[in-house]
Amino acid sequence: MAVIGVLIDSMFEDVEYTKPAQAFVDAGHTLVHIGLEKGKTVRGKSEGTQVLIDRAADDVRENEIDALFIPGGYSPDRLRAHQAPIALVRRFADTGKPMLVLCHGPQLLISARVLEGKKVTGWRSIIPDIKYAGGEFVDEPVVVDGPLVSSRQPSDIPQFIGASLKKLGEMALTR
Amino acid sequence: MAVIGVLIDSMFEDVEYTKPAQAFVDAGHTLVHIGLEKGKTVRGKSEGTQVLIDRAADDVRENEIDALFIPGGYSPDRLRAHQAPIALVRRFADTGKPMLVLCHGPQLLISARVLEGKKVTGWRSIIPDIKYAGGEFVDEPVVVDGPLVSSRQPSDIPQFIGASLKKLGEMALTR
Repeated sequence: MAVIGVLIDSMFEDVEYTKPAQAFVDAGHTLVHIGLEKGKTVRGKSEGTQVLIDRAADDVRENEIDALFIPGGYSPDRLRAHQAPIALVRRFADTGKPMLVLCHGPQLLISARVLEGKKVTGWRSIIPDIKYAGGEFVDEPVVVDGPLVSSRQPSDIPQFIGASLKKLGEMALTR
Repeated sequence: MAVIGVLIDSMFEDVEYTKPAQAFVDAGHTLVHIGLEKGKTVRGKSEGTQVLIDRAADDVRENEIDALFIPGGYSPDRLRAHQAPIALVRRFADTGKPMLVLCHGPQLLISARVLEGKKVTGWRSIIPDIKYAGGEFVDEPVVVDGPLVSSRQPSDIPQFIGASLKKLGEMALTR
């Protein structure tokens, strides 16, 4: 099963973390929470869900994780104000391993300059940013382009989980 | 003196509204708070400052206001999820009247597609978005390009107020 790096900071949209995280764990995958500072507790913006950061982004090598999961809310905006999470996303994108992003998650892919020519979806407020960054915005509950799985908003979570688990399964077959 | 439209929703960065707003009123200008819904009270994200919305964005004509002021925080991200505030910014930009934007404020200018070729600054997380949108990012406390006055963050507020009041004064001379 996969080791999934969850790239997260405070102000994440609670259900965009809790529901996929639970589904991934139930399917036998392992989560590693990656943030700005190891040992720090970050909190969701709607329900105050607490998440302990296992590893700092600048201390994670891309070969230590099999997939990257980026929940939405304002966590991506906070992370992209720092170089380490952006650099990790950029290095990880080069590996071709699954990237699972929700809502505002594509903001980190824009900062890492890895969205050009990719089919992707995301929260409606960032549609202009996605298009300006060269991404091909698709208004569907879940969009899969190679290793990239993306969804728009909380109501898309069931489809997001389904496509993400499928992508993780495909990856296991090719190893 | 000028009628300044303040384009604002909840999750604004409190001091990025309160300090310039107070300075503008002290200088004799009038504020009209424009948001998604008339009569709604919106709240700051750090200190819970309450602001009553005077006018809905879709009900404001660009000739009713002399300048537009957009505080930062997550208010711009919330506003740009709706068409009316984006359309107002686009119509207002065409008038050539002052636009005073702080922190995440340029996000609304990106959505309105009015940033191309403009010198601008803003909060560091949105630098890639500004550049992809064709804006010329300048890392200074305040940047003035024609009618556009922009600043990066709360520590720039004194310079932002100074440049904004100067711009409002220049406008008065040309009327």
